[in-house]
Amino acid sequence: MGDYEYLLVKQDGDTVRITMNRPERRNALSEPHMRELLRAFTEAGDSDATGIVLSGEGKAFSAGHDFADVAARDVGGVRDLLRLCTRVMTTVQQVPQVVVAKVASIATAAGCQLVATCDLAVAAESASFSLPGGKGGWFCHTPAVPVARNIGRKRLMEMTLTGDAIDARTAVEWGLVNYAVPDDELDARTDELLARATRGSRYGKGVGKQTLYAHLDRPEADAYAIAVEVMTAMSQSPGAREGMASFLEKRKPVWTD
Amino acid sequence: MGDYEYLLVKQDGDTVRITMNRPERRNALSEPHMRELLRAFTEAGDSDATGIVLSGEGKAFSAGHDFADVAARDVGGVRDLLRLCTRVMTTVQQVPQVVVAKVASIATAAGCQLVATCDLAVAAESASFSLPGGKGGWFCHTPAVPVARNIGRKRLMEMTLTGDAIDARTAVEWGLVNYAVPDDELDARTDELLARATRGSRYGKGVGKQTLYAHLDRPEADAYAIAVEVMTAMSQSPGAREGMASFLEKRKPVWTD
Amino acid sequence: MGDYEYLLVKQDGDTVRITMNRPERRNALSEPHMRELLRAFTEAGDSDATGIVLSGEGKAFSAGHDFADVAARDVGGVRDLLRLCTRVMTTVQQVPQVVVAKVASIATAAGCQLVATCDLAVAAESASFSLPGGKGGWFCHTPAVPVARNIGRKRLMEMTLTGDAIDARTAVEWGLVNYAVPDDELDARTDELLARATRGSRYGKGVGKQTLYAHLDRPEADAYAIAVEVMTAMSQSPGAREGMASFLEKRKPVWTD
Repeated sequence: MGDYEYLLVKQDGDTVRITMNRPERRNALSEPHMRELLRAFTEAGDSDATGIVLSGEGKAFSAGHDFADVAARDVGGVRDLLRLCTRVMTTVQQVPQVVVAKVASIATAAGCQLVATCDLAVAAESASFSLPGGKGGWFCHTPAVPVARNIGRKRLMEMTLTGDAIDARTAVEWGLVNYAVPDDELDARTDELLARATRGSRYGKGVGKQTLYAHLDRPEADAYAIAVEVMTAMSQSPGAREGMASFLEKRKPVWTD
Repeated sequence: MGDYEYLLVKQDGDTVRITMNRPERRNALSEPHMRELLRAFTEAGDSDATGIVLSGEGKAFSAGHDFADVAARDVGGVRDLLRLCTRVMTTVQQVPQVVVAKVASIATAAGCQLVATCDLAVAAESASFSLPGGKGGWFCHTPAVPVARNIGRKRLMEMTLTGDAIDARTAVEWGLVNYAVPDDELDARTDELLARATRGSRYGKGVGKQTLYAHLDRPEADAYAIAVEVMTAMSQSPGAREGMASFLEKRKPVWTD
Repeated sequence: MGDYEYLLVKQDGDTVRITMNRPERRNALSEPHMRELLRAFTEAGDSDATGIVLSGEGKAFSAGHDFADVAARDVGGVRDLLRLCTRVMTTVQQVPQVVVAKVASIATAAGCQLVATCDLAVAAESASFSLPGGKGGWFCHTPAVPVARNIGRKRLMEMTLTGDAIDARTAVEWGLVNYAVPDDELDARTDELLARATRGSRYGKGVGKQTLYAHLDRPEADAYAIAVEVMTAMSQSPGAREGMASFLEKRKPVWTD
């Protein structure tokens, strides 16, 4: 799929596997790396795949922004970089596919932001997560945005202010990832979760995911206003009709959308 | 209390017990069933009771919407149904009584939404919870609204996207219910929690509950703007005055409101 | 530092230690006590300290509002009191220092609100936390505001409606405090956490903390709009430049801001 310098991208059945593949730079999110991520997620989003697995080759899932890239920029250049980064994150949430982060190693700063942004995440027990800007000079401002929406406030404060890493087990307890699994089971357990998460109507699930992000962090009454209208409209979709018909007719559903 | 076809409703001391009683349909939330729930909660809300226990007879607390009812409707009819359902949920949060869900079995889709909506919830250890739309063709759009406001984001995504059930122990860990108790202790432990939650001034507590739902999901500064005004006004209530007077006079309070 | 009747305030290296010191009144938050807290946090905020530890002498961290003070007030007087209390809480979040609550005993009502408001919190294992208004006549309206933003909804409802205390271990599980430690390790463990949380550029961290509170409880897109602009601006700060330069030059950073 496409032609990438920093990524390995391949479609494997219903799954698009996007692997950050610049291990010698710890998969740092330079501008060209992020442009490729944006393109890969956009292409995968337009494909007929039902799931996307995001992973990173080598000793780091991703170490976050590339300081060599940032330090050379003026203020307008940094804004462009952070806006591009935000577009990558938004795109991960906007594609209709289920996106799982598969984290084998360390995810720091914007790398941890990617994990927080994916719909689901599975970590090897040896993986770790940190927002290290807090013990440096900048601060993980944008990485904290989705992390704050995954874990409790006191824990967010500890991660951002100390900059220290948490292990995979703690990440599960705090809700940053779904599972911490033995390192040698990471691939299988990730695929198992994705298989469970991609059953049913592709169209119905994609709209479902997108609608969740539209109302997750809004007041409950606003969320209902959105959810009622979407659920009403979707009741007429082929998937919804087939789901109800097959249930009432006590037969297996056949999804066409 | 009243005359119901789908429910058993009785006042038991200070508690109104609302039991969904259509076990042969797994307490599916058909339109007439929801109309009765709305009426029962509205009547209980107007009563002098201090607490409400919502439970379900049979193998399901509630299996959610009734597909036979939904499938027969056009888009306007589905919207009416979902708006009615939302009114039931809103009413549960608006009544001044403490509402506890007592979950002995499975709570799926809008049944799980009811559990998430109640102020408190106690589950039998054998109970389970799911948002199964995600593995079908429609999607649990509206059920996800209150579930998203009870549990973390990654866990919400797992429930909605996989559609798989979680057990009662996991529901406690994730914050969807307050307690998972041995099946044969469910009644006693529910009543024990409700007893602890209904002490004090009935009026003060009702306003307290209603005010929480008014600001829970708003920015902190907005929440303070609401809470300061309500708490100021309520400082003049008989309950507040009696609470403070009895404390200062080192005697037991006598609640008159 | 300053002259206080209800507090002990001293600067100890980079840390300002604010100790509520009216144990015979269980550190109740009377108006003059809160005025001193406001002044102490404002002064500490203007100092060159990097951290603040808030603690309470005696059998209570703080028992919350002083009923003798409240009961004597008319409605305007109560509003003034609650607005002053809210200013104290807001100031704790607005100062650039990392603020840790060190809780050796019981924190109730507005005392629990203080714990929820501090950036971080360490509790002795024998400490406890409650919002007791719910079993009285008033209701912990304003204390519930920050507690609701630390713990899940069902747990908030249990705390506010029952008024019963939770122990330190439960407070950690629910996310109200960061650590529950043996009573005789409380001082050391609090200082250890604060030391980890105050490394790096003071200016960068202060802006980081303040920015988190600006976007924590807003929709994700709004949060990004804030975080991107702040992170862009801060990329030009001495701390950010030194952090990146020292990393790229493989040397220890020297913070000047």
